[in-house]
Amino acid sequence: MSNYAPPVARLIEEFSKLPGIGRKTAQRLAFHILNTREDYAVNLAQAIVDAKRKTKYCSVCSNITDIDPCSICTNPKRDKRIICIVEDPRDVVAMERIKEYDGLYHVLHGAISPMEGIGPEDIKIKELIMRLQKDDVDEIILATNPNIEGEATAMYISKLVKPIGIKVTRIAHGVPVGGDLEYADEVTLAKALEGRREL
Amino acid sequence: MSNYAPPVARLIEEFSKLPGIGRKTAQRLAFHILNTREDYAVNLAQAIVDAKRKTKYCSVCSNITDIDPCSICTNPKRDKRIICIVEDPRDVVAMERIKEYDGLYHVLHGAISPMEGIGPEDIKIKELIMRLQKDDVDEIILATNPNIEGEATAMYISKLVKPIGIKVTRIAHGVPVGGDLEYADEVTLAKALEGRREL
Repeated sequence: MSNYAPPVARLIEEFSKLPGIGRKTAQRLAFHILNTREDYAVNLAQAIVDAKRKTKYCSVCSNITDIDPCSICTNPKRDKRIICIVEDPRDVVAMERIKEYDGLYHVLHGAISPMEGIGPEDIKIKELIMRLQKDDVDEIILATNPNIEGEATAMYISKLVKPIGIKVTRIAHGVPVGGDLEYADEVTLAKALEGRREL
Repeated sequence: MSNYAPPVARLIEEFSKLPGIGRKTAQRLAFHILNTREDYAVNLAQAIVDAKRKTKYCSVCSNITDIDPCSICTNPKRDKRIICIVEDPRDVVAMERIKEYDGLYHVLHGAISPMEGIGPEDIKIKELIMRLQKDDVDEIILATNPNIEGEATAMYISKLVKPIGIKVTRIAHGVPVGGDLEYADEVTLAKALEGRREL
């Protein structure tokens, strides 16, 4: 039983359902809405509904997009012979930020994780294979996360794709730039050593 | 320049405007919306707009309410001769939670703060005085926050109200229940000592 006016209680309730938003934060956000200009509240509400209704998965790369195929897939300046495979749409944004990569993407929407009951059929691997059989691709870059699930997913895809005759590469593991050897964990350090290059 | 689809970029932007929500959190919330069921997104959006549109300040106590006067002001079981003065609607909720207080409230919507340029005319003090002149009130309890602004506000109201012949009290300062003396700051400890009672 809440002592808030019902519309306020309901907003606190809805905010609480967001990830990482506890009761106190939900309350703070709700009171911010109450104290803000009405047009901001309306804009936020509209943005929420629009983000949900006006976006879909790109039919080519499965990235989140408002136009299909997405602007990366249809960009004539991009190299269609290279596909970078990532777990999440946010990883596309991270890759684009470096402004070095001009190939295409394929978003898996997850990684294989037997622990969480996520198998190869639960992520966009079938779509990737169909795409590779249809299009003319020279190389796929496996940019799944450097953790157990990401590695397992990379291995799985690698075994499927290599027989097709496409070059399969994996992003490098090593110590982060600007990091400190002292604070690097053993596994990262071992990977960094293993991947050493001649200068 | 963002690499997100425009509706996603806009939602991240709107979420970022919320207090305590940084870029990363806004991004996480936006992707939660994208991955959630559409009816949740619609409910959240509706709750935001409703909270803003369907609530107002109670014309008696200035608390946030969807009906005017609010349910506390119109509750016949409550003692109309005592008014507890708080800074914020959330303080009303905190007071109601203790289930000990059955008087009415007056919400100031702030505290006097020369540093932030908030004077007595910027908070609901005028409304309080008009209310005290109109209604039959025996006591006002000053429950503004135990900080400089809250104390200044309490002092200011006290000086205005005492001449009307109404009893003015201030909530007690002291060490919090369940707290540890070792961690209490000097000022709180001094207040606790000053306010000691015979057992």
